[in-house]
This record gives sequence, C-alpha cells and structure tokens, in this order.
Amino acid sequence: MTEAVLSGDIGGTHIRLAVVDTAGNIIRLIKVKIERSTGRSNLTKQLISSAQELIQWASTKNIKILGVGIGIAGKIDPSEGKVIFSPNLPEANGKNISKIVSEYTKCPVFIDNDANVFGRGEAWRGEGSKVRSWLGITLGTGVGGCIILNNKLWQGDKNIGFVGEIGHMTIYPDGFRCACGKRGCLEAYASEGGLLRRIAHDNLYSSSGRIKSAKLLYLKALEGDPVAVKLFEDFGRALGIAIANGFTLLGVRHAIIGGGVSQAWEVFKQSMFDAAYSNCSMLSSDQIFIVKSKLGDEAAILGAAKLVLDSI
Amino acid sequence: MTEAVLSGDIGGTHIRLAVVDTAGNIIRLIKVKIERSTGRSNLTKQLISSAQELIQWASTKNIKILGVGIGIAGKIDPSEGKVIFSPNLPEANGKNISKIVSEYTKCPVFIDNDANVFGRGEAWRGEGSKVRSWLGITLGTGVGGCIILNNKLWQGDKNIGFVGEIGHMTIYPDGFRCACGKRGCLEAYASEGGLLRRIAHDNLYSSSGRIKSAKLLYLKALEGDPVAVKLFEDFGRALGIAIANGFTLLGVRHAIIGGGVSQAWEVFKQSMFDAAYSNCSMLSSDQIFIVKSKLGDEAAILGAAKLVLDSI
Repeated sequence: MTEAVLSGDIGGTHIRLAVVDTAGNIIRLIKVKIERSTGRSNLTKQLISSAQELIQWASTKNIKILGVGIGIAGKIDPSEGKVIFSPNLPEANGKNISKIVSEYTKCPVFIDNDANVFGRGEAWRGEGSKVRSWLGITLGTGVGGCIILNNKLWQGDKNIGFVGEIGHMTIYPDGFRCACGKRGCLEAYASEGGLLRRIAHDNLYSSSGRIKSAKLLYLKALEGDPVAVKLFEDFGRALGIAIANGFTLLGVRHAIIGGGVSQAWEVFKQSMFDAAYSNCSMLSSDQIFIVKSKLGDEAAILGAAKLVLDSI
Repeated sequence: MTEAVLSGDIGGTHIRLAVVDTAGNIIRLIKVKIERSTGRSNLTKQLISSAQELIQWASTKNIKILGVGIGIAGKIDPSEGKVIFSPNLPEANGKNISKIVSEYTKCPVFIDNDANVFGRGEAWRGEGSKVRSWLGITLGTGVGGCIILNNKLWQGDKNIGFVGEIGHMTIYPDGFRCACGKRGCLEAYASEGGLLRRIAHDNLYSSSGRIKSAKLLYLKALEGDPVAVKLFEDFGRALGIAIANGFTLLGVRHAIIGGGVSQAWEVFKQSMFDAAYSNCSMLSSDQIFIVKSKLGDEAAILGAAKLVLDSI
C-alpha cells in the first residue's frame, strides 16, 4: 500500500485538489470551478465532494491517504484550522474548514495561508530547497509572502493570524490606495489588482479598449507600449524596495518569487533589481539573490502536501 | 563561591564594563572613556586592561567569572567573534575581538551587535520578558534593531553579519540622505545623527545658535518650538511606519523601544502611534503594542551578560 496525502489549493475562482505521494510526486490532480450563485458559493460542499472523490479513487488504487492539507488566501489561524478573513472567499470567513472537511473525510486536516503553503512547497522541492533562510513572495491578484528561517516556516506570533504580509508593507507613504484601504502598499503597485486599479484610476487605455488582466498588460509591455512599460517599471521598483527592506530587517539575502504574475518577470526584473540594489545598504549587489520560482502552480499543491507531512 | 560574568558595552565614546551575577544583578560597573590620539584609539588595550581589573577584583571577592560578553555597534559575526564593520569604532574593523580578549582574560568571550545585546537584556529582565515575539528598536546616534521570535533572538542568515537593521529600511524612497549613503532610511529621520544632519542641511537655528544634540532639540520641542516639534513629528511618523512594516512582515504586534533618544518619547509618541495605526492594515489599533524600555543603560549590560549565559 502506497502512502499519500490529499492537498488542496483554494483560489478565488477554482479549487485544485491532488493526491501527492510522500516523495512529492503529484499522482492525480483535479481542478473544479467554484460555483457561485447570487454571489455566494457552496465552497465547502464542493471541497468536500472533490475530496471524497479523490479519497475513493485512492482506495481503489490501494493508496492510503494520511491527511488533507489546504492553502487558502487570507488571514488563517492554522492552529485552530480556521479562516479568520479571506478577501476572495468571503463564504469561508469564520469557518473552521479543518473541522468541517475532517468530519467528512475522516482524515486529519490542516490549513494555512496560501503564501505559507507556497513557502513549504518551494522549501521542499523548489528553489527554496537550496537555501536555509529566505523571503517568499507570491504575485497574483494581491501580493502574499512567507518567511523561512533556518529551513523552518516562521508562522508569526501566537494566534496573530498573519505573517510575511509583504504586500501590505507601506512602500510609498501617501502613495496609491491599496485594496486594504491604506496607502502606498506594495500590493497597490505590484499585483494584478493594483495594476488594474491604477489603469482605471488614471483612465489609461480608455481610447484603445481597457486592459483587463496583468497578462494583457505584460504583452503590451513586451511590445514596448510606454504606458505598460512604465507600470511594470513602477511594479518592479516597489517590489525591489520591499525586498531590500525585507532583507535589511530579516538579515537574509535570498528571495523567491512565485504566483501567476511572476510570469511578467522579463518586464519588471530590471527595475526590481535596480531598486533592491540601491535600497539595501547592508548587502552589496553580488550578495543579493532574487530568483523566480520554477514550480509554477505546483508550489501550492506540493506545499499543502508538505503541510500535512510536517504536521502528522 | 559566587558565579558571575563580565559584560561590556562598547559605545562610540565609552566602554562600560560590569560584573553581573547569574540572576542579572549588576555587582560592579566601571565606565572608561575611549582615549583617542590622532584619531585612532587603543580600544582593545583599554578593553583588556579594564577586563583584567574587574576579573582581579572579582577574584578578591571570591567571584568566579564564567565568561565575557560584549556588545558593539556595527556588523558583527558572532559565530567568529569578529567585528566586520563598525561605523563608530573603525579601529575594531576586521578584528577578532573575542579571540584577543580571550587570550588576555583566559575566559570564553562572546560578542554581538549592540541592538541584539539590547534584545537579550530586554528579553531577560525588561519589557521583553512579558512577550514571546517582538521587534526591538534602539534610538541613538543611529537606529538599531533586533528580532525576538518565540523568546529567541533571531540572528540572521548564516554569516550574514547583520539582522534587524530597521534603521536602514527605506521609509521614504527618494527621501532624506542617510549616513549609510542611501536615501529615506528610518535612521535619516529618527536618530540623533539624522536630526542633526537635517538641521545642518536645512540650515535650521542658524540665527539662534545651532542645536548640537537630540536632547537640546527635545527640550526645544517641549517648549513648543515649532521647528523642533515638526522634526520630532517627522521622527515619530517615520518610526511608526517602520514599526507597522515590521509588524506586517514579521507577524508580530509588540515593539520595545530603547536607546538614549527614546527619552524624547513624549514629543514623538503621538505621531509614532498615529503612523503605526494607519500603516498596519493587519492589526487594529488596540492590537498594536509599542512600549518604551524601562531598563535604560542597563539593557545592554544585562544583555551582554545574558549572551554569555546563553552561550556557555
């Protein structure tokens, strides 16, 4: 009998759930669109039925499921297994997802913030496996972060419900308004949400048809469109300052960048490196290491699997 | 026979050296002015002779000295016992202070950055003993910092030589020039050096006689002098933003502020709290705790003693 875990990545639009063996091989993966009627979803119901489907499949293959791990964006209390506040999944707010899923799957269930799960995945099988201490950053709709110190994920002060929230560090006091309500956060500059809000706010591309995704803006920047180039320069600069500040505070010199919007690497890397070099007086430029994750979507799935293996 | 340690705090102008018992009582303390002729000092010579004096005194009192601990401002490699770079003590640069002092005292010697030593002192006998995870900040000529996670001092990535350098986080990109060479560091706003450089740069108080210390500026602010009030408002705001950013990244909610310039608390606290509250979207204002150290000068001496007790 093979041993494996069930690992899940709950995003704003989809649930991805996988059977992962203890060596970190993804054996089977399913992706389910979150059904929303009248704004609310049956998130937990869909999550449970997908989990049950995979557990049943595993039993036919003689695979023993040791536990379930799930990554969710937002403020999470991993020790309680509770979602405190999730901006993209308001239906999960206040719910003890661990307890609910555990009741139906008869397995121990562990949840954590999506960026922490990214960190565990990277540390296990990605770039993070090569360095002891590093700062992880996920660029997507928002900006997430995680902190790995001496090969261990730092989980924040007891019951605080957040850690590594580099996306909400103030980079420009009195700067552009962030989704969180305050001004000048990294996320207001270096996320898809931030880019699209800046485009709407400054009424950019109003004659040529509004840009509706970071990917489209990235393609524009690749073509040399000056507005898109400038937005990604600002993106990179804010990110570079944030990384420099993170290194300076944490006493680390490695950053690993993942998330869907990290695919725009080519158009923000120059200004990111320039800003990181010029804003970190503790390290010379050849002591600063910022790399792009190579795991892609798999980082979250592998990390949620590792969360189970680390916890049971 | 009583057991005790020798603990030292090397500042820019003085060496303070004490015999501290294992319960954290300062039994005897001496303060020696660093003699500088033609710009260089006999720092190590003075340090060794002071240490020998105290060890001899201890032996007459039947006190056994277990080891020597020393805090020094600058980039320190604690594992090697080496001063990498000390801005105020250039004569110590590159020197293996641990080895040199150990040869003459026949004791194990441990050194660390002065802010880390402050952190150990606070965690042992100060405000830090009441909380598990916190950010420490020392306000003086410059701004130092330390990070305590789950009651343990985080010492940074292996051999990196710095950690918790909150003073060199960029608070205002393109802001005021810092002593480190880059722009907009916390230290450029919230330290004695920063205040005095701003006064010189903007040619403030040129008619009434230049202000030469943070203390004099503080007294001016207490009298309601608008320039001094404004400088300390900027001081507090920069400090509040830095603390909010530290909390957001680290996932902590407690800060302890020490160092000589923390005595100006009354004139910067309002803008510090305002800025911390408005720049931390992860915590509500009643979840944010910033307190002033009550140990004063003793924090460093106690911390250097604890460094020995933790190391032997």
